[in-house]
Amino acid sequence: MGLLVVGSVAIDSIETPFGKVNDALGGSAMYISVAASYFTAPVRLVGVVGGDFPQEHIKFLEERDIDLDGLQIVKEGKTFRWGGRYHYDLNMRDSLYTELNVFEKFNPIIPNGFKNSAYVCLGNIDPSLQRQVLERVGKPRLVVGDTMNYWIESKPKELSETMKFMDVLVVNDSEARLLTHEPNLIKAAKQIIKAGPKVVIVKKGEHGALLVTEETIFSAPAYPLEDINDPTGAGDAFAGGFVGWLARTDDLSAENLKRAVVYGSTLASFCVSRFSVEGLKNLTYLQIQDRYRSFMQLSRFDER
Amino acid sequence: MGLLVVGSVAIDSIETPFGKVNDALGGSAMYISVAASYFTAPVRLVGVVGGDFPQEHIKFLEERDIDLDGLQIVKEGKTFRWGGRYHYDLNMRDSLYTELNVFEKFNPIIPNGFKNSAYVCLGNIDPSLQRQVLERVGKPRLVVGDTMNYWIESKPKELSETMKFMDVLVVNDSEARLLTHEPNLIKAAKQIIKAGPKVVIVKKGEHGALLVTEETIFSAPAYPLEDINDPTGAGDAFAGGFVGWLARTDDLSAENLKRAVVYGSTLASFCVSRFSVEGLKNLTYLQIQDRYRSFMQLSRFDER
Repeated sequence: MGLLVVGSVAIDSIETPFGKVNDALGGSAMYISVAASYFTAPVRLVGVVGGDFPQEHIKFLEERDIDLDGLQIVKEGKTFRWGGRYHYDLNMRDSLYTELNVFEKFNPIIPNGFKNSAYVCLGNIDPSLQRQVLERVGKPRLVVGDTMNYWIESKPKELSETMKFMDVLVVNDSEARLLTHEPNLIKAAKQIIKAGPKVVIVKKGEHGALLVTEETIFSAPAYPLEDINDPTGAGDAFAGGFVGWLARTDDLSAENLKRAVVYGSTLASFCVSRFSVEGLKNLTYLQIQDRYRSFMQLSRFDER
Repeated sequence: MGLLVVGSVAIDSIETPFGKVNDALGGSAMYISVAASYFTAPVRLVGVVGGDFPQEHIKFLEERDIDLDGLQIVKEGKTFRWGGRYHYDLNMRDSLYTELNVFEKFNPIIPNGFKNSAYVCLGNIDPSLQRQVLERVGKPRLVVGDTMNYWIESKPKELSETMKFMDVLVVNDSEARLLTHEPNLIKAAKQIIKAGPKVVIVKKGEHGALLVTEETIFSAPAYPLEDINDPTGAGDAFAGGFVGWLARTDDLSAENLKRAVVYGSTLASFCVSRFSVEGLKNLTYLQIQDRYRSFMQLSRFDER
């Protein structure tokens, strides 16, 4: 078994209308790993940081039982840093700076002990690197991949090639539209399925998520949060909850994929309630189960 | 009992990337009445048209068992006409022309036989007219009201006064935000509840609908249509299905309100699949029930 997570590890400075944080833990692999760590352990992380990466962050990841054998520390380099400011409408944000630093030359080296991972989650990184990861591991049972508008626009060929090796593509609604030039999300998802992934998950932020396969469509609501403090990492927390649940249960049935989508939404809802990964700290499995059941209440109606 | 519907009756010319129609039946009261007519009969319509209103439309409404005693026909006048063109992304449209004609001086006269209506649905018209209607009827069991950005911006005081007499306000997401200056939809809905309506329904188009009361939040999915031909009237068809179901069952429990939201979504999904009111013609109750059950499938997941 085992879940391998590959992606960025960053130090973020984030400002929203509700507060700000400096030098906080960030990056796609980070959010994915922390969210997944509530379902399966140890989560195997592959990423790169610089010598400036704070020891307290390492300590937190170790406490979450995240295996850091694949975390390269480039002593003389600096960690990937991102700064962003969100508008009053949290759907809009400005990137203030993006310093790739050691992440610019990231070579995803997979420790031998990670190569047999049955579950692989590829955070939003260069699609060529995503493919390299897949060439360096055995035959996983499930490959979940994320991407973003930057890669869709700048590396369409590489992305299209990499998508053929993904079982599940997780994208947001605007990315699904950009990828397919199709405004109808259901049509867009079906078009993506033709390009490789058997399962497409369209994350719609405050509107929930859609799971689309050849045979099934499932619509999950978003948790009706009144206090969203920081949307950073919500999509990655979703992916982490999703793949974490699948790795825990090792059940890829349509019914269990639906549950995984709701667990993904559950972790995303915790994530955005606080800054950085704070919302994903100190959760209990009982809290997660409780919120899962709230999702059931939220969307349940009966026949008559 | 009885359901009273007041609003616009129009002749629409609509163009979308998938086709066009000229001189088709339109208007808020029209879509609401036709959708509701699948649940309760006769639906009592109050509106105004000109001498140019085609006899075939009258015939259709009579066939749907819609009581036209309250439909004023101003022989020497012309019917309200609207022309619109939708973009490839159907969420965007341009109004090509809006000729109010006889609708400009609409005085909603309520026939005596309509005054005891237990259910009243106020289509999107001037909030002062909506209030006049309420002053002219007895004490209904439920008042459902719609509005739009035009009234929110041009008649905020009148709207705010009228909202106090609505039990259910049906708005779309951008209207809810505009009305409250609050980007978070849950907070916006709760703010509206403080202003009068006990129930707020936020229609989110392709993302479904939210039902918010003081105690409950319910999230209904949208039907995953691949072929949407004309979004015109979707919100009104939703309101018609919603209030029609409530009038049929005369049950205002939280559980039945949820069902009503799904019946609203059901009628909206039929509406947009064809042009004008074509998608609301010749439905059977069995078809409606079948689609209702599809909505259950779409959003159902279990515990484990």
